[in-house]
Amino acid sequence: MLKDFQSHILDNFPELTKNKFLLACSGGLDSVLLSYLCKESEMDFILAHCNFRLRGAASDGDEKFVKELGNRLGRPVLVTHFDTMGYVHSHRVSVQMAARELRYQWFKGLMEEHGIAYLVMAHHADDNLETFLINLSRGTGIDGLTGIPEATGQIRRPLLKYTRDTILAHAKEMDLQWREDESNADTKYLRNKIRQEIVPKLKELHPAFMENFERTLGFLKETQEISENELERVRERLFQRENQYLKISVSELKKLRPLHGYLYGLFKEFGFTEWQNVAELLDAMSGKSVYSAEYVLLKNRDYLILAKKTAQEKGVFEIEEGDFKIDYPIGLEGKEVLEKKDTTARIIYLDKNTLKYPLTVRKWEKGDYFYPLGMKGKKKLSKYFKDEKLDLFSKQEQWLLCSGDAIVWVIGRRADDRFKVTESTKEILSVALL
Amino acid sequence: MLKDFQSHILDNFPELTKNKFLLACSGGLDSVLLSYLCKESEMDFILAHCNFRLRGAASDGDEKFVKELGNRLGRPVLVTHFDTMGYVHSHRVSVQMAARELRYQWFKGLMEEHGIAYLVMAHHADDNLETFLINLSRGTGIDGLTGIPEATGQIRRPLLKYTRDTILAHAKEMDLQWREDESNADTKYLRNKIRQEIVPKLKELHPAFMENFERTLGFLKETQEISENELERVRERLFQRENQYLKISVSELKKLRPLHGYLYGLFKEFGFTEWQNVAELLDAMSGKSVYSAEYVLLKNRDYLILAKKTAQEKGVFEIEEGDFKIDYPIGLEGKEVLEKKDTTARIIYLDKNTLKYPLTVRKWEKGDYFYPLGMKGKKKLSKYFKDEKLDLFSKQEQWLLCSGDAIVWVIGRRADDRFKVTESTKEILSVALL
Repeated sequence: MLKDFQSHILDNFPELTKNKFLLACSGGLDSVLLSYLCKESEMDFILAHCNFRLRGAASDGDEKFVKELGNRLGRPVLVTHFDTMGYVHSHRVSVQMAARELRYQWFKGLMEEHGIAYLVMAHHADDNLETFLINLSRGTGIDGLTGIPEATGQIRRPLLKYTRDTILAHAKEMDLQWREDESNADTKYLRNKIRQEIVPKLKELHPAFMENFERTLGFLKETQEISENELERVRERLFQRENQYLKISVSELKKLRPLHGYLYGLFKEFGFTEWQNVAELLDAMSGKSVYSAEYVLLKNRDYLILAKKTAQEKGVFEIEEGDFKIDYPIGLEGKEVLEKKDTTARIIYLDKNTLKYPLTVRKWEKGDYFYPLGMKGKKKLSKYFKDEKLDLFSKQEQWLLCSGDAIVWVIGRRADDRFKVTESTKEILSVALL
Repeated sequence: MLKDFQSHILDNFPELTKNKFLLACSGGLDSVLLSYLCKESEMDFILAHCNFRLRGAASDGDEKFVKELGNRLGRPVLVTHFDTMGYVHSHRVSVQMAARELRYQWFKGLMEEHGIAYLVMAHHADDNLETFLINLSRGTGIDGLTGIPEATGQIRRPLLKYTRDTILAHAKEMDLQWREDESNADTKYLRNKIRQEIVPKLKELHPAFMENFERTLGFLKETQEISENELERVRERLFQRENQYLKISVSELKKLRPLHGYLYGLFKEFGFTEWQNVAELLDAMSGKSVYSAEYVLLKNRDYLILAKKTAQEKGVFEIEEGDFKIDYPIGLEGKEVLEKKDTTARIIYLDKNTLKYPLTVRKWEKGDYFYPLGMKGKKKLSKYFKDEKLDLFSKQEQWLLCSGDAIVWVIGRRADDRFKVTESTKEILSVALL
C-alpha cells in the first residue's frame, strides 16, 4: 500500500510534498496509519489532536497515545482540550456538531498561527458509504449522497480511495498499534451498526462493490454539477440585484418545473432548506417573510425580496451613490435631473452635494428631529406626527430617508430644509415615492 | 389498507376507475393482494398471467392458481406460455431480460387487441429499495437510483407507496393465499439476500426508513429533472438538425464541464451509454465512429455527426426538397438559382423539375451506369472509373447523387446528361461540392 499511496500523493496531492501540513490524528486506526504513511513518505507535517473530554480516562489515554506516536515518528504534536459538553449546552447543538465546530475552529486557528496551508484528514471510502447509508436512512437529496470530496478548500483526504479492509490489512502488516476511535459519539450506534451488520452484506452483493460505489458517487457528483449549472443559469436570469438585496419575480419562479426542486436548489445556498416555506411564500400576502440563519426572504407584491437579516434586523437599508430604484423596504426612485420642479409629498429635489453616501432608509426612533422644508429651526418628529394627526399604525409604517444622522425626507410627507436645492446647487437629485 | 388504497386510487389513478385495465398477475403475494383490492373496489380488469416455463411443475402450478383466482374473483384470465430459454439463446440476452421483453410484448399485443388503455402492475416500495441496492452494488448513475415511477406511459403501479410489510400484513389479515413468486430468476439470489439480510437492518437504522427513502427518491427525481432541463438546453444549443442527422460542434462540446457527465447525459437517449467511447471520439481522426443499438456517432472534421444506423448501414442518405446544405456523408450545398453558369467538377446545374425527391446520396454499386453529360448514350460506372484511372481507394470513397434509380452526379467528377438545364427549364438547382 505504501508505494500505491506515494504515487497517489504524487499524482493527486503534489502540494503535500512541497508544504508542511497539519494531520488530524485521533489515535484511531485510520489516522495512525496515515501518520506512518506520511512519515515513510518523508512528508513534513504536525500532528494535531483534539481531546474532547467526552470519555474520561479513555480520552486522556488517546491524548497520551498520540503524544507518544509523535515521539516515535519524530513529528511535533499539538494538543488541545475542549469542554465539549459545555459547548453543547451553550450553543444548543448536538455533541457531534459541537465536536465538529470546536475541532475546525481550532484547526483553522492553528493553520493561521503556524502559516500552514493544508489540513490532512484520514477519511476513507467506507466513511463515504456509511455517511451515504446514514443520510439515506434519514431521507436526503443528492447532496447527502455524493460523499465528502478528496480535496476541498484547504482540506485534503488522501486515504479516501482506500477501503477500511485495505487500511486494516496494511496496519496489521506493519504491526501498528492504535486506539479504538469512538469520537463520533452521536452517530456511534448508527455507524457501528452499519459497519458491522450492513456493509459486509452489501459487499457480498458484488465482488467490486466498493469500486462500483466510488463510480456511483462520481456519476452522482456529475449530475449534481449539471443540475447546479442549470440552477445558476436560472439564478442569473431571475435574481435581479438591487442595492442591498435580490429581487425575484414570483410569476417567473412559478413557471419552473419541477417547482419544489427548483425552489430548494435556488435558495439552499442562502440557508433556506425547507422548500415548503418558500413555496408557501409564493402565494402569501405581501409582507410575509421566512428566515434562514442569515437571510430573510420577503414577499413584496409580485416579488420575493432576498436580503441579509442584519439589514432587516437593524432596519437600516443603504443606498449607494448614483441613480437608484429600490422596491424594498419601500419603493423609491432617485435620479439626477437638470432642473428642479415643485416639491410635493411624493417627489422631492435635493442638492446632491449636501448628501453623505450611502444614504439610508430606516424607521423613526424616539428623539428624531428634522428641519421641515420652508421652516426656520428644527422640530421633533413626535411633535410633527402629532400635528399631522398620524395614528399609531401610520407612525409605525413611516420610513425616513437619511444622510448620515440627518433626516432628508419623512418619506411621502415632508422634506428637510437642509438638503434643498439653492442657487449655488450644482447637481440636483430627485427622489420619488413609487 | 383497503380504504387507503381506494382513496389513493381516486386521488392519483382516477383513470383506473373509469377504464377496464390489464392486471399483471404472477400469483405471488403482491399481485394477488392487488387483484383482491381491485375486485373489492369494484374496478373492471382482466388478469394476465405469463407462464415462462422456467420452473417446470411450479410454473404450471402458478398458472393453475391464477386461473382459479380469476374464477374466485369473477374476472377473466388470459394466459400465455413462453419458451423463455429459447428466447435467451436466440436473442443472446439474460433470462431476466428475456422474461421482461416477452412479457411486455405480450401485454402490448393484448392491450391493442382488447382496446385496453392501462396495464396495472403490483410493484411496491421495497421493490424500489431492492432495485436501488442492486444498482448501487453494480455501480450506477442517478437514473439507476430514482426507482420505477407510479405512472409511466400506459403502466400504473398503485401499490408503489406500500411496503412489503404492509402488504403482507394485509394479505394475512384477509387470509389470502398466494404462490411464492420466483419469476425474477436472474436476480433471485441478490433480491433474496437484500430482502432477508440487508433491508431489515436498514429499516432498523431509522423508524421511518421507508418513508425517508421515498422522500429521497423524490428529491433525486427532482435533481434528475433539473439536470435534464440543463441537458435539453445544451442539446438545443449544440445539436443542429440537418437533413437526416444531427451535427454537433466538437469544440463546443469540449467546453462543457463536467465534460464526461455532459457527454453521458447528452447522448444516453441515443443509446450511447459508454461515455468513454464518445469522449475518445472528440479527439479521434475524421471518419472514426462509434455505434449504439440504433445510432452511429461519427467524427467528421470539427463536428460529430449523429445519425440513425439504418441510413448508414444501407449507405443511403436522403435529401428533402428545397435548398439544402449537408456535411454528411459528404459536403454538398444545393440551392435554387436564377441562371446557370458553367458546370465544373465541383458544381453542377440541374433542371429541378426532372428530379424525383427525396434525392439520395449513396456509394456506387456493381451494375451502376449513367449518361455522362455531353455524351449520347449510357456508360457503365466501372468503365468510367477505369477510363479515369481511379484507384481502388478512390472508387470506394466515391459518392453518387441520385434521383430515384438514376445517377444525377458522380460527385466531384461528372454530371449526368438527363438532368441538365435546357431551354425549357423553369427552375434551376445548383449543387456544389463543399
